[in-house]
Amino acid sequence: MKLLYFRKGDSIFPGILTDQGVFDLDKFQADHGGRLYVGSSITRDDLPILQNIVQQAINQPAYFLKESELHITSCVPFPSKIICIGLNYRKHAIESGMPIPTIPVVFTKYPNTLVDYGNKIELGKVGYQFDYEVELGFVIGKKAKNISKEEALDYVLGYCVANDLSCRDLQFRTSQWLMGKSLDHFLPLGKYLVTTDEIPDPQALELLTLVNGDVRQKSNTADMIFTVAEIIEDLTKHFTLEPGDLILTGTPEGVAMGMPATPWLVPGDVVEVTIEKIGTTINQMS
Amino acid sequence: MKLLYFRKGDSIFPGILTDQGVFDLDKFQADHGGRLYVGSSITRDDLPILQNIVQQAINQPAYFLKESELHITSCVPFPSKIICIGLNYRKHAIESGMPIPTIPVVFTKYPNTLVDYGNKIELGKVGYQFDYEVELGFVIGKKAKNISKEEALDYVLGYCVANDLSCRDLQFRTSQWLMGKSLDHFLPLGKYLVTTDEIPDPQALELLTLVNGDVRQKSNTADMIFTVAEIIEDLTKHFTLEPGDLILTGTPEGVAMGMPATPWLVPGDVVEVTIEKIGTTINQMS
Repeated sequence: MKLLYFRKGDSIFPGILTDQGVFDLDKFQADHGGRLYVGSSITRDDLPILQNIVQQAINQPAYFLKESELHITSCVPFPSKIICIGLNYRKHAIESGMPIPTIPVVFTKYPNTLVDYGNKIELGKVGYQFDYEVELGFVIGKKAKNISKEEALDYVLGYCVANDLSCRDLQFRTSQWLMGKSLDHFLPLGKYLVTTDEIPDPQALELLTLVNGDVRQKSNTADMIFTVAEIIEDLTKHFTLEPGDLILTGTPEGVAMGMPATPWLVPGDVVEVTIEKIGTTINQMS
Repeated sequence: MKLLYFRKGDSIFPGILTDQGVFDLDKFQADHGGRLYVGSSITRDDLPILQNIVQQAINQPAYFLKESELHITSCVPFPSKIICIGLNYRKHAIESGMPIPTIPVVFTKYPNTLVDYGNKIELGKVGYQFDYEVELGFVIGKKAKNISKEEALDYVLGYCVANDLSCRDLQFRTSQWLMGKSLDHFLPLGKYLVTTDEIPDPQALELLTLVNGDVRQKSNTADMIFTVAEIIEDLTKHFTLEPGDLILTGTPEGVAMGMPATPWLVPGDVVEVTIEKIGTTINQMS
C-alpha cells in the first residue's frame, strides 16, 4: 500500500494510492464512522482495516481524488521523533574521515525540517557547505521498547526515500551535528510511504542521487553497517519508539563533503534522490 | 501566571493556578465557547485572554479544582522540539573537561523524556553513570525566526525548572550525546510553567540541586555563557521555533561527572532541583 498526505485548509489528511486515484480516507470515515486520522499517525494495526475500507469504497468515485490536483505534503507529517543514524555505510564513514562505527551513532533532525512534497528548498545564508544525502527512511507503526532484531520488522509501518540535506560548516561548528542538520525544510521526503508488504527486504534496495542529472551517490542498502532491524533493536533497548516516529538509516558514499573537487549545493541546483521500489524526491535548491 | 497540565482519561488539559484552586480552562471554554487547548500549546497571544477568562469565572467554584486531587503531568506536554544547550556555564565546561563554547552547543532530548510530575524515574540497566543537571527551561510562545536578542524575550511564554537527567556512559559512547540524554522519562520538570510577567529577568535566578538532601549544585543563571535572549537569537538565525518548543539552557558545575568522589545516581536516591521564583521538582530514582 502507498500512503500519502495532502493539505485541505489548515489540516493534513491521509490518502491511499489506488488505480482509481487517491482514496480520501477521512472523508470516507466522516460519512461512515470510524477513526479519523487528521493530525494523527496511522499504525500497523490500522493497515488491514484500511485495506478493507478501500475495498468497500472502490465503486464510489466521490471518495477518490486526482493525485495531480492535491497539495501533497510530507509523507511523514507528525513524527514525535526524527532519529538519524550517522556513518552507517562504511565508505561514507571513510570519506568523512571518521572511524567506522561499532555502535550506531544517533543524532536528530527536528520536525521543522519537514517540507511539502516537491517544494523548492531555500538554502539561506547562515552556512555555505550545503550537501545532499540519499537515505532509506522507515516509520514506526507500533509502540516499541526492548524489541529484538528478529521481531523488529514487525514494528515498521513503511519505508520512504529521504534527502537528509546537511550544512557541513554548521554541522561541525561544535561537536554536536544537530545545527547543520535541522535548517528549515532540510528533509524532503518522497511522495509515498510504502508499507512493508511491498518491501519484504529493506536491505536489498538500490539508492541513487543525481545532482543536475549527474550521478553522485549509487549504492545499495545491503551495504549498511547496522540494518533496519539492528537499528530498532539498539534504539528500543534505550528508549520507546512511537507510531509515526521516522528513522533515517544513513547515507552511502558520494556526498560533496567526501569529494573535494565536487562543489557544494547552490541555488538553482536540482537534487534527485531515488530508492528502488519506493520512489524519488526531486527538489530544486533556491 | 502559573500554568500546569493535568490528565483526565486519555487527554491532557491545561489549568491555571489561582487562590481558588486550579482553574479548569477547557471545562470553562466548553461551556462558554472559545478555543480548546486539549493537545495543543498555549501561545503568548492567549495570555491576556486567559487572564480575562479567569476573572470572569472567579465566582463560579465549579471551574476550580483542588490541585491535590489532580494527576499533574509535565508542564510542557506538547513540544515539537526539546532543544538543549550544552556547557553553558563556564565552571561546568571546565569540570566536564571540555572547551568553553564560543557558540552555543545544541543537542536534543526527545519527547519520550517527558514524565508526569513527581513520578519515580526508572534508571534501567542500559547504562550506569546516571547524573543530575538542574536547568532553567523556557517555552516559546510565538513562532520565531530571525529574532534579535533585543526582542527575543517577547517570544517566551514562560519558564520552568528542569532536571536534565543524563547517562554519561551512553552520552559518550559515540561523538553524539543524544543517547545519554533521551532515556524514557529522563526530563522531569517542575509543576508549573511560570509566565514571563513573574520573571522579569531570567538571568538572575538561583539554582540548587540536592541529592538525598546534600547540596550538589548551587549557582545562578547570571553565570550562563549565552543568555536566554542570546540563545533565541542564535537558534532562530538557523531555524524556526514554534509555540510549545522547550529550550533547556544548560547546567552549572557540581554534576557527579565533574566530581570523581561523588557517586552516580542509583535506585532510591532522591534528587531535588529548584530555581528561585519558579519551583522545584523532586524525583526518586528507581
